[in-house]
Amino acid sequence: MSWTIESSKLNQSDLLTNESLFFLGNGYLGVRGNFEEGYSEGDKSIRGTYINAFHDKVDIEYGEKLHGFPDTQEKLLNIMDAQSVQVWLDDERFSLFEGEVLDFQRKLRMDQGYSERIVHWRSPKGKEVNITFKRLVSFVNREVFVQEITVDPVKGVERIAIHSELEGDVSNFVDPDDPRVASGHAKRLAAGAVYETDGCHVAGAETHETKMSVCCSSKTFSDKENHDYESNIEGAKAQETYTFSGEEKITFTKRNVYMDSMRYGQNLEKKAVQLQGELADDRFEDFLEEQARYLNDFWKTSDILIDGDDDLQQGIRFNMYHLLQSVGKDPKSNIAAKGLSGEGYEGHYFWDTEIYMFPFFLMTNPEIAKNLLLHRHSLLDSARQRAKDIGHTRGALFPWRTITGGESSAFFPAGTAQYHINGDIAYSYIQYYMVSGDEDFFRNEMAEVLFETSRLWLEVGHFHNGQFRIDSVTGPDEYTCIVNNNYYTNVMAKNNLLWAGKIYDHLKKEDPERLTELMNDLEAEEEEIEMWKEAAEKMFLPYNEELKINEQDDTFLQKGKWDLDTTPKDKYPLLLNYHPLLLYRYQVCKQADTVLAHFLLEDFTDQDTIEHSYNYYEAVTTHDSSLSFCVFSIMASKLGQKEKAYDYFSKTSRLDIDNLHGNTKDGLHMANMGGTWMGIVYGFAGLRVKESNVHFSPYLPEQWGSLEFNIRYRNCLINLKLTEGKVVYTLVEGDAVRIFHMDSEISLDPGVPVEKRTSL
Amino acid sequence: MSWTIESSKLNQSDLLTNESLFFLGNGYLGVRGNFEEGYSEGDKSIRGTYINAFHDKVDIEYGEKLHGFPDTQEKLLNIMDAQSVQVWLDDERFSLFEGEVLDFQRKLRMDQGYSERIVHWRSPKGKEVNITFKRLVSFVNREVFVQEITVDPVKGVERIAIHSELEGDVSNFVDPDDPRVASGHAKRLAAGAVYETDGCHVAGAETHETKMSVCCSSKTFSDKENHDYESNIEGAKAQETYTFSGEEKITFTKRNVYMDSMRYGQNLEKKAVQLQGELADDRFEDFLEEQARYLNDFWKTSDILIDGDDDLQQGIRFNMYHLLQSVGKDPKSNIAAKGLSGEGYEGHYFWDTEIYMFPFFLMTNPEIAKNLLLHRHSLLDSARQRAKDIGHTRGALFPWRTITGGESSAFFPAGTAQYHINGDIAYSYIQYYMVSGDEDFFRNEMAEVLFETSRLWLEVGHFHNGQFRIDSVTGPDEYTCIVNNNYYTNVMAKNNLLWAGKIYDHLKKEDPERLTELMNDLEAEEEEIEMWKEAAEKMFLPYNEELKINEQDDTFLQKGKWDLDTTPKDKYPLLLNYHPLLLYRYQVCKQADTVLAHFLLEDFTDQDTIEHSYNYYEAVTTHDSSLSFCVFSIMASKLGQKEKAYDYFSKTSRLDIDNLHGNTKDGLHMANMGGTWMGIVYGFAGLRVKESNVHFSPYLPEQWGSLEFNIRYRNCLINLKLTEGKVVYTLVEGDAVRIFHMDSEISLDPGVPVEKRTSL
Repeated sequence: MSWTIESSKLNQSDLLTNESLFFLGNGYLGVRGNFEEGYSEGDKSIRGTYINAFHDKVDIEYGEKLHGFPDTQEKLLNIMDAQSVQVWLDDERFSLFEGEVLDFQRKLRMDQGYSERIVHWRSPKGKEVNITFKRLVSFVNREVFVQEITVDPVKGVERIAIHSELEGDVSNFVDPDDPRVASGHAKRLAAGAVYETDGCHVAGAETHETKMSVCCSSKTFSDKENHDYESNIEGAKAQETYTFSGEEKITFTKRNVYMDSMRYGQNLEKKAVQLQGELADDRFEDFLEEQARYLNDFWKTSDILIDGDDDLQQGIRFNMYHLLQSVGKDPKSNIAAKGLSGEGYEGHYFWDTEIYMFPFFLMTNPEIAKNLLLHRHSLLDSARQRAKDIGHTRGALFPWRTITGGESSAFFPAGTAQYHINGDIAYSYIQYYMVSGDEDFFRNEMAEVLFETSRLWLEVGHFHNGQFRIDSVTGPDEYTCIVNNNYYTNVMAKNNLLWAGKIYDHLKKEDPERLTELMNDLEAEEEEIEMWKEAAEKMFLPYNEELKINEQDDTFLQKGKWDLDTTPKDKYPLLLNYHPLLLYRYQVCKQADTVLAHFLLEDFTDQDTIEHSYNYYEAVTTHDSSLSFCVFSIMASKLGQKEKAYDYFSKTSRLDIDNLHGNTKDGLHMANMGGTWMGIVYGFAGLRVKESNVHFSPYLPEQWGSLEFNIRYRNCLINLKLTEGKVVYTLVEGDAVRIFHMDSEISLDPGVPVEKRTSL
Repeated sequence: MSWTIESSKLNQSDLLTNESLFFLGNGYLGVRGNFEEGYSEGDKSIRGTYINAFHDKVDIEYGEKLHGFPDTQEKLLNIMDAQSVQVWLDDERFSLFEGEVLDFQRKLRMDQGYSERIVHWRSPKGKEVNITFKRLVSFVNREVFVQEITVDPVKGVERIAIHSELEGDVSNFVDPDDPRVASGHAKRLAAGAVYETDGCHVAGAETHETKMSVCCSSKTFSDKENHDYESNIEGAKAQETYTFSGEEKITFTKRNVYMDSMRYGQNLEKKAVQLQGELADDRFEDFLEEQARYLNDFWKTSDILIDGDDDLQQGIRFNMYHLLQSVGKDPKSNIAAKGLSGEGYEGHYFWDTEIYMFPFFLMTNPEIAKNLLLHRHSLLDSARQRAKDIGHTRGALFPWRTITGGESSAFFPAGTAQYHINGDIAYSYIQYYMVSGDEDFFRNEMAEVLFETSRLWLEVGHFHNGQFRIDSVTGPDEYTCIVNNNYYTNVMAKNNLLWAGKIYDHLKKEDPERLTELMNDLEAEEEEIEMWKEAAEKMFLPYNEELKINEQDDTFLQKGKWDLDTTPKDKYPLLLNYHPLLLYRYQVCKQADTVLAHFLLEDFTDQDTIEHSYNYYEAVTTHDSSLSFCVFSIMASKLGQKEKAYDYFSKTSRLDIDNLHGNTKDGLHMANMGGTWMGIVYGFAGLRVKESNVHFSPYLPEQWGSLEFNIRYRNCLINLKLTEGKVVYTLVEGDAVRIFHMDSEISLDPGVPVEKRTSL
């Protein structure tokens, strides 16, 4: 069962959650797992189809708007709905909420890349039928969402009718009561009239503000020639009805092609119809074959094998699968906080990408990882403009949340104030370079981004008593906003500045021409570089002598401690029950902050400090953010607190499957999904990427019999297999590579396993 | 000219400013100085009539709404417009923007309490006329706004027509581009149909949300029996036209009576018509007589006489006059940041009342001062609820901006975070008690308010290393938000807690019955009082050894200094040109903060610290808030920096008359007006109210020949007259009183002047 997710639940809450869990996507297109035939009246459903980055701009309202507050916000749009297909048995319409459900199974097949619903149903009038709904969003033909419905009459059916719809006039979901869900601007798409051409139905629409267009061409097939057919178009809605005799099993196929103007330019509708032509008679099975091949390749590299816990095995695959389904693979797109699985956070890209999701791709699918970096690079001009809008004189400030570069955060203390986004992006660039050794990237995109972010650090911080200090920013912990010298921010800035200096020195020596060009393009002076180096060197990293911990910020330790023990369970997450000012006033953390910094940049502090800090912050952290458990799991592993490591890990790997945060309906917690992978690879296997090499300090959780996975490093694919007390490293692809195991360097040659003892 | 404000300007900008400068009010009703006949097409005008506290609730929109953010905001409403009166000479309509203005004077008569416009005009067709418009809002009959228009034909006029209107269907002013002005919710009043009864036109309206009602009955009179009359009602608008022969001067009177349901309950329209009946034939001159008498009394006590600078003399009177016009004199109302002069800040009451306006009333009109305190007391239940909404368990948190008690601040870092409002209110209660010796008030309202605010301080602060510390609040300086241990907040809290302890001890000894009752009402424990005392004693007041100053907060001095010298003039005020985060990052103050604390509570620090602090903070303060100059003037006086004191004072006293902040159109800066009075009485005369007594350390600015004013203290009226090098104290009312002059106690007996040398 670890290759499938199954559910047979039909209650309202699970249905909503399952819409996210069973969503299908390919990084371009995402379709929520809604029921083709609909629900019972009054049931809530978030029916959604999305194209990554396809958005409109909506106004942000403020009771009091100050300078530099963004006027508008980008918002991922729900687009035309092709999911709907109803099945009629004579005069009765099939519904899982009427009649008698004799059997119902729902599966997400992660090895092959499709989902299905298998139903054995008895109608209110006693007719009996087996129905199977299959669907697939193609990784190979990213425009294609294909559905197959088979109806197998068992008893008393005289006629079977299939009623299929294409609805062009759709809205986004709104919930005025939840700050994490949009509360307005539902209707942002002007739908054109649907029409029929070349055997397809075509629906087109345009966004209100951004004037982007999108279209869907939908083509239906039946496997029986002998049927009646009727079609009807009303405004933005097309309806088709196929009627068959009720004597034998029928198979109905609906093939939907989606295109948007960001990728396909003008004449979308023509192109979408043309593609239908090229796809000829390809049906579900044809796409499935390619899909399975694609996934086979993916899993061959990316799979993680756990012996000993099927639930976790399933959870891990589920998370990797959904990361693959959601990550943008073209230059226009990144990976949203909810992926393509829902509308939570408006389809925005956050630091989640760089710190929580990028590592998985970096170590398994580097071309996808590189695309994420290039996408950020494409936002650089917006980031320069944003820095100016705030009042800075130079440099770039990446937006806290965005799609195409505009800051879309409406609450700056936990938005724009998180300047660490700049350091996070620089960090991911540095990681990529260390793993790939991509010199061309180093000289170009990386140099430019690290120079511009370094310039901003000089704007934000200042020298004071021999220290470089950064005031009035917010670190990752959103329960402590607008502080001075947040350890996380400062150490990430230090890393950023150090590497900008390194790049400068390297280019000066190796490629002075490129350096001159870059300096000219940026209108940068040599003195600036000296300042970067000095700021990096003198960066203030708060440390408390008494507790022997890095302080989260200048004053964190002077605040009162929130009493987590006496806080009632129903008061969590705290942000939904207390005014932010009250939270800011206490030592209470929404998520890993200093502990995260210690994971990302362990070399800027020492092991003792890391340990004391972990113990200290663990006691004041609520993990109200889904970005927290995985970091605590990784660091518990590092510190040999294996029980804790495993416990935190368990919570990450099934967070969405078990709906632990209660809001999976709005979309999956993608960062946590990346965090699950990290919990294994950085946590149990102790991977760290350093400038010189990759390092492992692996151990096998005692609950497991074995653990096996691959990582890519410098054109090599390295396999690790952990069993009790030992690890075997095998170079699967590549000529030869040197890696570190527990601080000692080892050489791997192709196909020759190297066995090492693991830490206790 | 120091008893009048004059203007003959007709350009767009001055007209808007003059609408505020020439507003008339009585604390209940306020009418902006709009032209009866209107303006030329395309000119902007903020036509407004307001009743203090008459408001609706409007939704506050947030891009991201967190727990405890208020859902709605109270908003003062513009109510029915009775100002309009047009004058026609045959077929030509009088307008100051057409024909030829041969002479035009506009006057505000502060000694008598009315305004007038005197016009000598030649029409485009060459007809000539003298027209005078007079208006008055009665201090004696607060419902009455009366207008008198006289038209004296000079040449070529055959018929004079007076066209008067009552418009019930009005909106508030909106400006989407200025954060200090409302940007929406213009239309909040549903106007009923106007009708005629008992010789009056009556307009009624009801607010959308609060369901408050308001009405205006308007009655017109002419002094000539021989005229044609026509009246016409369309919906919410009544029009009347009187037509006279053009042979002789005519006088037209329009008497408008305003009533609202907050004060007059049900059947408003009937009551407003009834009052018209009671007022019988009273016209402008009748009201003027009473008005002049009322003002004579006011000025007799309150006037400040300056010999040597007519401009300042005028400015000072202007400010006191407008304070009187705006201050609420009934239990439903307070004094808004813009008084009743405009719609800026939505008619909200802020700390401006307690810290900047209350002192003037306290020392000259204690019954008005007491009403302000009682009004705050009436908001105590709302403040208790607000504390709970935030997440506190007990105590009261007064709203940062409000009308009837609901927090109306939409931006908490410079709103709700200003917990010092609690200390400010406590401070004003204490001041009142020290001046009045009102024991009944002490035992009741004062005890309750100080107990409840003290309880909140215990909720907000905490003990740490032997200090009581208050984290995550904002002090008065809004360019530095959400900080720990803001000196101002902490010292005001200390004072609050100390006095709560004193009240407790006093009641325990003198009135245990009342104490028991109070403790029961509040469900308070005796241990709490011990905690208040301990918190007061251990209150952390940040001090920097090196600079010998009180630090504005824990980290202010570690921040970089904003370069005020190189900041271009057009970048002020900074808040309109830089993102708040950028401002928070620097040592740059919008206004007096620590310096204000040193003025209010000088005994908690020493003279050296006060001086060093003044010099330090002066260099980093932009005075972008209108609450700043006066405090710096007072403290410059204290420190003997007389030139500076005078310079700052000059900027306060004429801030609105000279429109120094450029936004007088939206209403007058009432706090600054109170500050002007303080600049003289607390600044030049060095008044300080202490528990034991009142203290003076007076000096005469060298620019002046003399300075004379009165203050009320314990049922006494004391006159001070300063001339070069000396001061004469005279007890004008009361039996005998002891005061302090330059640290030495002196006794005053009725009518016996006591002369003293002043400081250099």
